[in-house]
Amino acid sequence: MNERDVIDRVRRMAGNPAARNLDDDAALLDGWVITHDTIAEGVHYLPDDPPETVGWKLAAVNASDLAGKGAAPHAALLSLAMRGNGQWEAAFLDGLEQALVEFDMTLIGGDTIALPHDAPRVLGLTALGRAGPATPARGGGKSGETLWLVGTVGDAAAGLALLMDDTNSSGPLVEAYRRPRPLVSAGRALAPNVNAMMDVSDGVLLDAQRMARASGLKAEIDLSALPLSDAFHEARGDGLNTRLFAATGGDDYALLASGGEELLGIPLPGGTRLAAIGRLVEGKGLSLSYQGAEVPVPERLGYEHRGT
Amino acid sequence: MNERDVIDRVRRMAGNPAARNLDDDAALLDGWVITHDTIAEGVHYLPDDPPETVGWKLAAVNASDLAGKGAAPHAALLSLAMRGNGQWEAAFLDGLEQALVEFDMTLIGGDTIALPHDAPRVLGLTALGRAGPATPARGGGKSGETLWLVGTVGDAAAGLALLMDDTNSSGPLVEAYRRPRPLVSAGRALAPNVNAMMDVSDGVLLDAQRMARASGLKAEIDLSALPLSDAFHEARGDGLNTRLFAATGGDDYALLASGGEELLGIPLPGGTRLAAIGRLVEGKGLSLSYQGAEVPVPERLGYEHRGT
Repeated sequence: MNERDVIDRVRRMAGNPAARNLDDDAALLDGWVITHDTIAEGVHYLPDDPPETVGWKLAAVNASDLAGKGAAPHAALLSLAMRGNGQWEAAFLDGLEQALVEFDMTLIGGDTIALPHDAPRVLGLTALGRAGPATPARGGGKSGETLWLVGTVGDAAAGLALLMDDTNSSGPLVEAYRRPRPLVSAGRALAPNVNAMMDVSDGVLLDAQRMARASGLKAEIDLSALPLSDAFHEARGDGLNTRLFAATGGDDYALLASGGEELLGIPLPGGTRLAAIGRLVEGKGLSLSYQGAEVPVPERLGYEHRGT
Repeated sequence: MNERDVIDRVRRMAGNPAARNLDDDAALLDGWVITHDTIAEGVHYLPDDPPETVGWKLAAVNASDLAGKGAAPHAALLSLAMRGNGQWEAAFLDGLEQALVEFDMTLIGGDTIALPHDAPRVLGLTALGRAGPATPARGGGKSGETLWLVGTVGDAAAGLALLMDDTNSSGPLVEAYRRPRPLVSAGRALAPNVNAMMDVSDGVLLDAQRMARASGLKAEIDLSALPLSDAFHEARGDGLNTRLFAATGGDDYALLASGGEELLGIPLPGGTRLAAIGRLVEGKGLSLSYQGAEVPVPERLGYEHRGT
């Protein structure tokens, strides 16, 4: 029984309709959208990542789940399994607090425990958001609908690559990796007008495949249409491999939605990009094209966190 | 900055009234009582504890927090930081599921991650309960009020002692340790009629001191009045040291409430014991008596989980 089997076993325990069969990133309970993400040292972040950014990202990853459901972040409970003298935790909490303020959430509870000195830290956040007039599921996409990408992809992966070359790197790509900004306002604006929505966190190809599977459909993605930032182009140019890098790098904090052309008329926060990147069709799986020609689907579609 | 400092730092982040200054075991948000407990292998349970009982207790510890606030358990999100081949986790999930069914909660979400092979498991549960007509805080006790204990204390600690002697021990004390039953119905019945309530989990002396501190008062406890089970007496006899053992052992899943004599008239589930064990008075801290005479307060009031 590996991680996948354990997840399937957990899924079978979830009988309540609020759980949405755990197919979604969040549950819907009485007007609250509720999500939980757990991260571990050495698995989801590196021991020498600045702790402020780990705190920021723990809040961001949860706020992004809420954004994908069109919910307004409201409250959070922190699970902090600490270790050592607490210096790392103090900086982690600084970053977490900044992000909670930024995303309009207050800490209402949680638990702090102390781990043995050689154990990796494990950090979890339960986030509650107020549901909007609609809470789109991941699996509501309809055949023939356009797949829309909100935001850009690849920036964080490009930022991480810069940091791997030089830990002193800075600039917008590094910022996208270190201090991602979930698209909460865009998510809330779009949610009532889409049939399916989710945040893109592990790579747009992987997440598009997940949406297609949950909707019982196939996703066709046009890599040429992927919205990339100027900073991304500047750092990595363009071309098929560059676009595959952007589409599979992960850590994106974008949104993926399935809906009609009326989405183009919805006012979004200034600077938010909305791009038609493909569509859902009858069938299964994923197909890719680039500049009008079909291209093979890469083996690795995104970032799936795994321990060893 | 040790665990206590980190907890204080987290506390300062909690500005929302729903957080109740993190003084309580649970937050109150829009009719929902929300709590989160995290446990770690080697800290809160032993690597060779039967995994079913670890799963059961993770649900029970959260349901007990809800019971202490008079809430009806409803839903839960699981944070499962797994390790190894998943066999342990399968049995853990069996026990968790049994407890969720027993306590009337459904799993609505969470996160499963894989840890490195030598990392201790870290398991968290966020539980949501529907608030009753009143959600008593820990700090609402009034001077002169009686301190009431619901349930018995010491059974689980006595059960653990039996298991330390002989891992094949069985019987009601071992059952109290392995499969505790939070007093959910009693908590719901009492909540509208008390000024302060909390679950007793770390030892009644420690928790009474916490209630007194949060209420700005002093707790006087009469050890002679502590309700002990027949099985406990049979195993450990009686006497001052026996009662101090019961009062500081922890893992009790009892309730502590502050209120008037009218509590005696409230119908409780059959077999539920309700005992006046002392009172809240002006002052600070804790004082103890046994058979009419004051006795010194022991240095260790209960079980405070700490890693190393």
